Amino acid sequence: MRRWELAVSLDPQGGQPLFLQLADAIAGDMRRGRLRAGDALPGSRELAAQLGLNRNPVVAAYEELAAQGSVRTRVGGGTFVAAATPLARVRPWTPEAPAAPTFALAPAAPARVVAPAAPAPGTLLLAGAAPDPRLFPARALARAFRRAIEARGRAALGAGGPCGHARLRGALADMLARSRGLPATPANTMVTRSIEQGIDLVARALVSPGDVVAVEQLGYPPAWNALRLAGAEFAPLPLDGEGLRVDALAALLERTRVRAVFLTPHHQFPTTAVMSAARRARLAELALRHRIAIIEDDYDHEFHYAGKPVLPLAAGPGGANAVSIGSLSNLLAPGLVTGFVVAPTPVFERIAQLRAASDPRCDAALEAAIAELFEDGELLRHVRRLKRAFAARRDALATALRRRLGGALEFHVAEGGLALWVRADAAIDLGAWVREGLREGVQFAAATPYEFSGRDVQAMRLAFSWHDEAELGQAVERMARALTRCAPRRRAPLARAASGTRAIGSREAERRRSA
Amino acid sequence: MRRWELAVSLDPQGGQPLFLQLADAIAGDMRRGRLRAGDALPGSRELAAQLGLNRNPVVAAYEELAAQGSVRTRVGGGTFVAAATPLARVRPWTPEAPAAPTFALAPAAPARVVAPAAPAPGTLLLAGAAPDPRLFPARALARAFRRAIEARGRAALGAGGPCGHARLRGALADMLARSRGLPATPANTMVTRSIEQGIDLVARALVSPGDVVAVEQLGYPPAWNALRLAGAEFAPLPLDGEGLRVDALAALLERTRVRAVFLTPHHQFPTTAVMSAARRARLAELALRHRIAIIEDDYDHEFHYAGKPVLPLAAGPGGANAVSIGSLSNLLAPGLVTGFVVAPTPVFERIAQLRAASDPRCDAALEAAIAELFEDGELLRHVRRLKRAFAARRDALATALRRRLGGALEFHVAEGGLALWVRADAAIDLGAWVREGLREGVQFAAATPYEFSGRDVQAMRLAFSWHDEAELGQAVERMARALTRCAPRRRAPLARAASGTRAIGSREAERRRSA
Repeated sequence: MRRWELAVSLDPQGGQPLFLQLADAIAGDMRRGRLRAGDALPGSRELAAQLGLNRNPVVAAYEELAAQGSVRTRVGGGTFVAAATPLARVRPWTPEAPAAPTFALAPAAPARVVAPAAPAPGTLLLAGAAPDPRLFPARALARAFRRAIEARGRAALGAGGPCGHARLRGALADMLARSRGLPATPANTMVTRSIEQGIDLVARALVSPGDVVAVEQLGYPPAWNALRLAGAEFAPLPLDGEGLRVDALAALLERTRVRAVFLTPHHQFPTTAVMSAARRARLAELALRHRIAIIEDDYDHEFHYAGKPVLPLAAGPGGANAVSIGSLSNLLAPGLVTGFVVAPTPVFERIAQLRAASDPRCDAALEAAIAELFEDGELLRHVRRLKRAFAARRDALATALRRRLGGALEFHVAEGGLALWVRADAAIDLGAWVREGLREGVQFAAATPYEFSGRDVQAMRLAFSWHDEAELGQAVERMARALTRCAPRRRAPLARAASGTRAIGSREAERRRSA
Repeated sequence: MRRWELAVSLDPQGGQPLFLQLADAIAGDMRRGRLRAGDALPGSRELAAQLGLNRNPVVAAYEELAAQGSVRTRVGGGTFVAAATPLARVRPWTPEAPAAPTFALAPAAPARVVAPAAPAPGTLLLAGAAPDPRLFPARALARAFRRAIEARGRAALGAGGPCGHARLRGALADMLARSRGLPATPANTMVTRSIEQGIDLVARALVSPGDVVAVEQLGYPPAWNALRLAGAEFAPLPLDGEGLRVDALAALLERTRVRAVFLTPHHQFPTTAVMSAARRARLAELALRHRIAIIEDDYDHEFHYAGKPVLPLAAGPGGANAVSIGSLSNLLAPGLVTGFVVAPTPVFERIAQLRAASDPRCDAALEAAIAELFEDGELLRHVRRLKRAFAARRDALATALRRRLGGALEFHVAEGGLALWVRADAAIDLGAWVREGLREGVQFAAATPYEFSGRDVQAMRLAFSWHDEAELGQAVERMARALTRCAPRRRAPLARAASGTRAIGSREAERRRSA
């Protein structure tokens, strides 16, 4: 018998499962006559080895073909092409799209998207500020997950409640009480699917259509999207080096009723400014007096490198009006999304009802595994390691930027967070620089998408959390090369290795020249 | 030096992490003088062995105490009680709840909860109809998860998009196209966090406050909760053995505008009725003509034991107006929650925008692992195993019910689903029977919570998916004992081992007597 070999190009990342790709390829060989009635197919182990796969998809492909009547198995073993091979293809992968519905659709919800397009492989990423998954204790989590789903009994795979797995709620509430001083207990702490789900629930609980929500002029567009869904009208407030200008909120309150203020007081997003103690006190006082809810997004509290982190607003005198929202994604990995909400009991009850009505379950197995990382102390050790790593990376990025781009950029070294807030010389065409950067193999972006009104922002948020020190140095090198290409007249100041002060002077001079 | 031994009762299920329980216990021994300044603590390995723990929580407890200044480490190794031991307790676990907010709260969203309270350990469960996790290929999923998060590179732990992980969307769309005939492609298939999140998104996309949504008189309250959140007014429609009475919908349309109909046509929830072909055709025609959206909850499509499953409405002539919602939880395990939505492209775009605004991430790591189970064919094999197991369990439950409770109950053996719909003799006090059942160690419940208007329902949904045949026999035995205790006058018919027909006769007679 001639030896049949399957020529197939499998695409493990393709939409179609491997076993169907295999079944299609084998059916194709039947149609082309490369396989005829009665021919023996190789054993599943043999074909798997030949293709460099594990055996499961091969077995499944044979089962699929058997279900169609294309192959038969014989007593004593072996899989054979059936006598009358149906020549029809396996059901096509992409069925026809249905016709349009006959009912009218409401207008689309406006939603701002800030994620830049995925760049070419090998591109170094300074846009976005996710933690480097190479630092993540993947093995420990995989072990914990295995224990969670293989545990005796059925509790581990049983349904979890709408507020999250009891063990994770407990561990999280404890961490938030200890490290952030929040009045968190398991009873007023909810595990959410994402930080945005937390914002969405809080918005649905607190905001009615037409309610005014004060936000930061530069901020986090996904939060605005969720608030807008609930019908919020926005009042953007200015920022400075101490965060939200609370005096502007006070002035706004003279004119209008404000339902809530949404803000990032700790490491302001995107500018990284830490709100001063005086402003916090004033904001708490205003909120209590004017019956305003404080929605505090404390998304990267742990990553503070200069002394102790400042306590959240929710831990201070305005706590009775404050809802604290956060995420474990920055402590774990972007693909392990877990947010949380801590709220005063009456508010929490409303949020819990909304969660119960809109998504009354939790990922019990995965949450149990994450809870185990807390219980072991593994997660807290991991956070300490991350803090050390990120502090070193922050310093490396700052040093490289000063050395190679000191004449073009101005920044303060952030006390915390995962990125530097960097202002660019007014003479630089940021859009052109970004495009040249992609050609050089580095992705960064102007902060314009974070500006509430969509005005151009001559600044960038450069992340130091995704790459190590050497990679960051290389990324800045590429930025510098890109700048040389897109703005040749900037070459002279670049070569000067200017200090921050000189850089400002130089930018001022440039501005006067270009004015 | 005297030997110190830690007396501590650890609670691994407690809210507080193990390492904090340990640190608290050690600090307690310092306060009580059992440990004094300079005393050496045992090595972390030694203490871990003594307590039967792994080493991580012990190391973390020592680190916690060191951070507080209660212990020190010495050069050359060893951990010692510090000279001046702070006598303060570790920060208390349960902080004070904050005072009430000064802002007014909107009234609570009404939400119906149907889950019965957790019964005593050892209770056999016939209420609820989750798949038995003992049948779940936990090891295969654990391996796939490990591969997903330990994979080289950072893609696996990177952020996933709002519509779910690309691999899982592809595998899911393929399965839905093949097994259900849905016009599903990766582009119009969304992976949701739960079936309810799918309903919530569809409701937010289609329903405006005051819109009328037709629902089944007996149905799934979590779906009503999500629809009500979007402002739906409900029109409950009657059911019979062929499912929703479409003639009642037609009559309703004479009087009022209907925006959408929400239904479970395949194995009607909770009655398990399969909607007849004639009614499907009529419903499709009505929906297209009257511009009504069909929201089809096809929650357990795969579990059909009599021939081929009937194709969904979304696969038929009304498909252009139909949104199909489902869940993988019944194929996997309750703690692995994954729902999906398939919709015509214009509707899908709205839903995708809402998801992007309210929860724009996915569990990339877990979804990649589940996708691998699809790609291997492992999941389809698992579904075939489940179908065989559930068919046998269904028959075992039906046999036991007929033998032991044939005089008290009446039912048809369902063609599909995970439960039997069982009517109880009108003379039985169902509430009393349920209470006696719990004492006997079996949990079942009247179907009253599934009735839209809250009227008493003299019927039950008895699940056969959680327990094996022997356990089901035992559960029915306990039901029979419980019935004997709560209604002694029913003893005679029980002993008769009546057939279905005789049971009806007996119930009719009983009804006449009690009328």
